[in-house]
Amino acid sequence: MLTYTFKDNSIPLYIQAYNYIKNDIVSGILSPNEKLPSKRAFAENNGISIITIQNAYEQLSSEGYIYAKARSGYYVSEIKTRPLIPQAAISTEKICLPKKEENIDIDLSSNKMDPDNFPFSIWAKISRDTISNKSRELMEISPSSGCLVLREAIKEHLRSFRGMLVDPAQIIIGAGTEYLYGLIIQLLGYDKTYCTENPGYKKLAKIYEQYNINCNFLDMDEKGLSIKSLNESKADIAHISPNHHFPTGITMPADRRYEILAWANEASNRYIIEDDYDSEFRINKKPIPTLFSIDACQKVIYINTFSKSLSPTIRISYMILPVELANLYYKRLSFYSCTVSNFEQYTLASFIKEGYFEKHINRMRLYYARQRQKLINLINLSPLKEKIDILENESGLHFLIRIHTRYKDKVICERLAALGIKLVPLYDYYLSSKKVEEHYFLINYSNLDMEKMPAVFDKIAAII
Amino acid sequence: MLTYTFKDNSIPLYIQAYNYIKNDIVSGILSPNEKLPSKRAFAENNGISIITIQNAYEQLSSEGYIYAKARSGYYVSEIKTRPLIPQAAISTEKICLPKKEENIDIDLSSNKMDPDNFPFSIWAKISRDTISNKSRELMEISPSSGCLVLREAIKEHLRSFRGMLVDPAQIIIGAGTEYLYGLIIQLLGYDKTYCTENPGYKKLAKIYEQYNINCNFLDMDEKGLSIKSLNESKADIAHISPNHHFPTGITMPADRRYEILAWANEASNRYIIEDDYDSEFRINKKPIPTLFSIDACQKVIYINTFSKSLSPTIRISYMILPVELANLYYKRLSFYSCTVSNFEQYTLASFIKEGYFEKHINRMRLYYARQRQKLINLINLSPLKEKIDILENESGLHFLIRIHTRYKDKVICERLAALGIKLVPLYDYYLSSKKVEEHYFLINYSNLDMEKMPAVFDKIAAII
Repeated sequence: MLTYTFKDNSIPLYIQAYNYIKNDIVSGILSPNEKLPSKRAFAENNGISIITIQNAYEQLSSEGYIYAKARSGYYVSEIKTRPLIPQAAISTEKICLPKKEENIDIDLSSNKMDPDNFPFSIWAKISRDTISNKSRELMEISPSSGCLVLREAIKEHLRSFRGMLVDPAQIIIGAGTEYLYGLIIQLLGYDKTYCTENPGYKKLAKIYEQYNINCNFLDMDEKGLSIKSLNESKADIAHISPNHHFPTGITMPADRRYEILAWANEASNRYIIEDDYDSEFRINKKPIPTLFSIDACQKVIYINTFSKSLSPTIRISYMILPVELANLYYKRLSFYSCTVSNFEQYTLASFIKEGYFEKHINRMRLYYARQRQKLINLINLSPLKEKIDILENESGLHFLIRIHTRYKDKVICERLAALGIKLVPLYDYYLSSKKVEEHYFLINYSNLDMEKMPAVFDKIAAII
Repeated sequence: MLTYTFKDNSIPLYIQAYNYIKNDIVSGILSPNEKLPSKRAFAENNGISIITIQNAYEQLSSEGYIYAKARSGYYVSEIKTRPLIPQAAISTEKICLPKKEENIDIDLSSNKMDPDNFPFSIWAKISRDTISNKSRELMEISPSSGCLVLREAIKEHLRSFRGMLVDPAQIIIGAGTEYLYGLIIQLLGYDKTYCTENPGYKKLAKIYEQYNINCNFLDMDEKGLSIKSLNESKADIAHISPNHHFPTGITMPADRRYEILAWANEASNRYIIEDDYDSEFRINKKPIPTLFSIDACQKVIYINTFSKSLSPTIRISYMILPVELANLYYKRLSFYSCTVSNFEQYTLASFIKEGYFEKHINRMRLYYARQRQKLINLINLSPLKEKIDILENESGLHFLIRIHTRYKDKVICERLAALGIKLVPLYDYYLSSKKVEEHYFLINYSNLDMEKMPAVFDKIAAII
């Protein structure tokens, strides 16, 4: 007869019985096909109620540790393969988390956003209104391409802000551009060869690598992606950021744009992915028209993100597919669920439709222009002035500087890191090592504390 | 001299000038290297201000349509490749959206959620508190694996609700299980062979197909995935739902679990993906312990989703990686941004930590149990009673029925569709056509209007 000691603790008695019996089965104390005591006998022997042991038997039976025979009782199941060791409590030490950069006070490459710049009170109000007034819509499963109301808001924004004419059915919403790149790879096929700009956005190279995609890193000249290297490459898909290249800041001029469009037109499987990631922040000027809007032959996939224009912690991006690819998407990939929650899709849609997004962009553009000007003024007042050139461009949240120095970039960065200053060389953004330019460094001014900058510039000047 | 007609409309004069000149360049009216009029001359000739034409020239110059020569003026750039046709306004007709099912009144397979069941007021309150009190955290970029506070809340929930011991570093948050499947494929490699249960979750087959992955569909027996077909297959990775198989409802018994774990242990590259998608809704009983928690050898990737337990329109899922794979993830894939916005991560974390998630699950489990019982009672009161068997299981939001009929499943479904009733045969969930069972149908009761059911059952009974 099975006899166990039941404890007077928070664990229900039937779970205690279940655990005792299960352990005896798994450890082999109870043998396969052995008959278990009747419920009444077990209950009397252990001083518990019949209903308690009945619950335990039912649980063991539904998990397959025991089985019932009609009018006979419960028997131990035959479990051929037993676990050898019990699951150990996982120790944290075994998991190696990515190292954090320690002791960095000032990060001149950070694209973090100053929380004061996010329109929290408006966002909170719209979220609240959305939850109060749209409960039915919030529970309706979104189409794969995203909620229509958000796609319509984006369409309207693109028309008024970018002069782009698109159909909401061409717009695909996703949780970040990285996710959308994955959809594009699935859409265009794994057998295609991609190319990106070198130097460029390093994550892109990593993503293509993770998808096992053949990707070439092509040289740039002063107009952007070199047409010569594009023609020499075997690329089918050119993934570029013609409106504000990262990190050089180059804006591709009109003649090169038409050349690249002509390249895409030479073969039916060629496409251009136009990454327009920070076009909203072009200072003082009308935004540059997109490649997408001068493309007459449906060869451009346009991609943009609210993570850049609102906050990197909001994961909403979108792509606009040429009609043929949109049809392919609906045919082959629309079984995927949209990756953005309805709550955020509806909130963002109202934020755009009620004009807050445009106001936010205008405010941020002014803010970034002022930050940039303040920073440049501070550089000009510091000893750095004589030792660097600022490579200005009219857009975005960063610029490059060129340092007049005889030290290697690596040495400069290491010495600055020891002082708590992170400065990233252009060199770091090269995806292949051919033709690397030394002495150029990135300055991102989206979240710099200007009061600390004079001291930082003194330190940089002393080291270079 | 260039002469244009400026209109008194909402388009700024400098944009009008820009458009006129750009069109003349692109269409060839202005020739490459032709000198443009001086700003003063253009302004006088067209009756606009010098500052207006200056802005237009600067915009054209920054886009590369014209170039400046020092002390000489502006010239037309050489644009070798011209667009042949202008971008047409996209017509909607060309895009074929997926067809919607029309005229379906009652969908017996729908897993949509009744909006009344979502805890809107609590969710709204927590969202509001999150935005008010956590503005700094909301702007901090989340680790790739998700915000720590959410991973800790999930860890604690799994400990108390599922008896699982995990380290938050093993938990990876993502925008839906479909997205996480993609990460798993990248993590384990494209060269692996996968297998899933047949019948099974059709989307899974589509996802593996889109990733170009070799995937076998293996037979099931009454205990779940057949060990015989698993051993005969060349699979490295078994993707299964042992706790509540969709759509058959089978719970894998203990002996089969140990057999599958033993299979995984036979080779170092073998893993099991345990999809625990609706385990929260096991009726009346303690949840079945997961494969993950009886796995002694770190061979199980556990995956679950809040889209099932909260609402399909909230896109938050998670996976728990064995330590070795967690390390591989941090080494190779942690460059990816987390796909869930901070706003929802922090809101969900508080929702779990403050006990609302457990309350919600308990409430829903009771609700679904009552729905199921009501439905069964209605079936038993209807003429269907004599014509079908209900294949009960103790879990989830659906069960199977077996119809005694001489008609083909397809015929039954077509006739019902004509009456506005959607009934999906088990047959539809087979991923390969071997061994298809006829006359079984799925009934999902998560969002059925019980008042309409008697009439629906009469119609079904008349047709079969």
